[in-house]
Amino acid sequence: MSLKPSSETDLIQSLFAPLARGHSGAFGLTDDVAYLAPSTLGQIVTQDQVIEGTHFLLSDPLDSVAKRLVRRNLSDLIAKGARPSAAFLSLAWPKSRSRDGIALFAAGLGQDLQDLCDNCPLMGGDTSTIEGPLVASLTMMGSPTATTGQPILRSGAKAGDILAVTGFIGDAWLGLQTRLGVLSTNGLEGCAAFAMAPYPPPLAFAPIVAAYANASLDVSDGLLGDGLQLARSSGLGITIDLATMPISQEALKWVARQASPAAAVLDLATGGDDYQCLMAITPDRFRALQAKARDLNVAVSAIGRFEAGQGLRVNHNGAPVDLPAQLGWSV
Amino acid sequence: MSLKPSSETDLIQSLFAPLARGHSGAFGLTDDVAYLAPSTLGQIVTQDQVIEGTHFLLSDPLDSVAKRLVRRNLSDLIAKGARPSAAFLSLAWPKSRSRDGIALFAAGLGQDLQDLCDNCPLMGGDTSTIEGPLVASLTMMGSPTATTGQPILRSGAKAGDILAVTGFIGDAWLGLQTRLGVLSTNGLEGCAAFAMAPYPPPLAFAPIVAAYANASLDVSDGLLGDGLQLARSSGLGITIDLATMPISQEALKWVARQASPAAAVLDLATGGDDYQCLMAITPDRFRALQAKARDLNVAVSAIGRFEAGQGLRVNHNGAPVDLPAQLGWSV
Repeated sequence: MSLKPSSETDLIQSLFAPLARGHSGAFGLTDDVAYLAPSTLGQIVTQDQVIEGTHFLLSDPLDSVAKRLVRRNLSDLIAKGARPSAAFLSLAWPKSRSRDGIALFAAGLGQDLQDLCDNCPLMGGDTSTIEGPLVASLTMMGSPTATTGQPILRSGAKAGDILAVTGFIGDAWLGLQTRLGVLSTNGLEGCAAFAMAPYPPPLAFAPIVAAYANASLDVSDGLLGDGLQLARSSGLGITIDLATMPISQEALKWVARQASPAAAVLDLATGGDDYQCLMAITPDRFRALQAKARDLNVAVSAIGRFEAGQGLRVNHNGAPVDLPAQLGWSV
Repeated sequence: MSLKPSSETDLIQSLFAPLARGHSGAFGLTDDVAYLAPSTLGQIVTQDQVIEGTHFLLSDPLDSVAKRLVRRNLSDLIAKGARPSAAFLSLAWPKSRSRDGIALFAAGLGQDLQDLCDNCPLMGGDTSTIEGPLVASLTMMGSPTATTGQPILRSGAKAGDILAVTGFIGDAWLGLQTRLGVLSTNGLEGCAAFAMAPYPPPLAFAPIVAAYANASLDVSDGLLGDGLQLARSSGLGITIDLATMPISQEALKWVARQASPAAAVLDLATGGDDYQCLMAITPDRFRALQAKARDLNVAVSAIGRFEAGQGLRVNHNGAPVDLPAQLGWSV
């Protein structure tokens, strides 16, 4: 099927084939399939989509939409200890949008695959039209950095492990609120820009996850909900101290301006789309992990503790925090 | 993200996790990624989507929609000489459709992965909602059956090769016309049913492609256009004799009822979605291929010839046929 009769092939050749970067198994995006050469450690595979109206706004610049798509997938791979090796794109392009928009989308895709994914090639996919919103799905294969080849799962946490997280939590949510008009952009300019396409830790963090984390996932549905996922998958309970949750200067000032700072921090902890790594770490290995991460300019904060039992307890400076009924997008 | 808050995990566990069939690398669809073990021959990867309003009708039964999705991908793998080994599904489910519909979709998906794909496991994916039409994208990995591991490409045809095709051409197009109300279903009952989810040759045909075909693709955009693709990719021209194109009894009778049988056959040859294998075969190997295929109950017909030069010439019983401006969906 085609965007317009006669145009799908042209479109793929002009906009997407360059993103194959000459990788021999991509056949220049002129064939129906790609070939992935044998891998000694196997492959780690993730697949995520972005849907207009669900994951991004109609008004979002299309290069940012493509970057969000790449980063949703990339953050999964990094959190599992893998580095991207091949990408496949399914694109359902609205008939109401221009072809120039596809060029902008492809540019954003190419830039992120180059800059954030170490020139990961686009090796195939499918492009078609839709009478409706834009839908893009990316399948990303990753090379494991663990010597076993296995991904770091959600289920490996042990009682007593530290819950640790990279970067800052909440900027993506704050930025989204400004873009939805719920909050003023005033004082949240950085968050507003960041929220278009939040970025995960750098690729070089993947082997650190593989070497140090007992369990790991990327924060996509909200810190609290995702923390509970790690605990549940590992058959444990978890306590999180919101006062230790790392937040940016902008977020810190925003929290200070709120009538209830505690409620504000809770909003940040349940907002989602942070794309940071949330990990279970053996306590006596935490300092070494932190030092390794610091060499990459990645901050790692200890924010909680896994324990025998089940469920999530949240404190703020020692005082228990009442939890909302809805912890995040999918918990 | 989720279909409804709290429901994505339940949905995946109840409807899709069984389709992982206990494959260890799928982690029961409880994690963010899948693990594919090392493969000695590498992997052949395809990705195709089905979009409501573009590839299927709003009124199509949802199990048929899922089957169409599987078969679009499966026909690519078979035509390249590969057998499916893992599948990943991105599903954008309309908010206006019921959850029961997802169960029907999952049932169709599971049935085809079992019956047509030798129990290929569903190993991951992404499920979300859309304010618009249903979109589903499948990424399918395949195990090569060629000893080199390489897929049979579009570009390997040689001057003098026979153009050969499996099965029948045109039933899917005829069936679609009945479903669109353009043609009466009277006398085309078989085509009407077949068109919901046309099926490709059986899996066992993949090693025959790998052993015999110099070039191959699946007929998805129309026989003539796809034949021209093979020729172009191989730097050759091609002549196709429409009188030798294999058509079903129903299609034969329909052609005979038309004012211009030649024009009717041309419609069948440009309709698309046939999912059959179209191959370039060295002439002195054709009989052996045909015999191997016959053992699988797969008919293989010789319908044309590759030649030095370029372009497509179409004859019908020796007389040249004028070609339409539009040969198929994407040529």
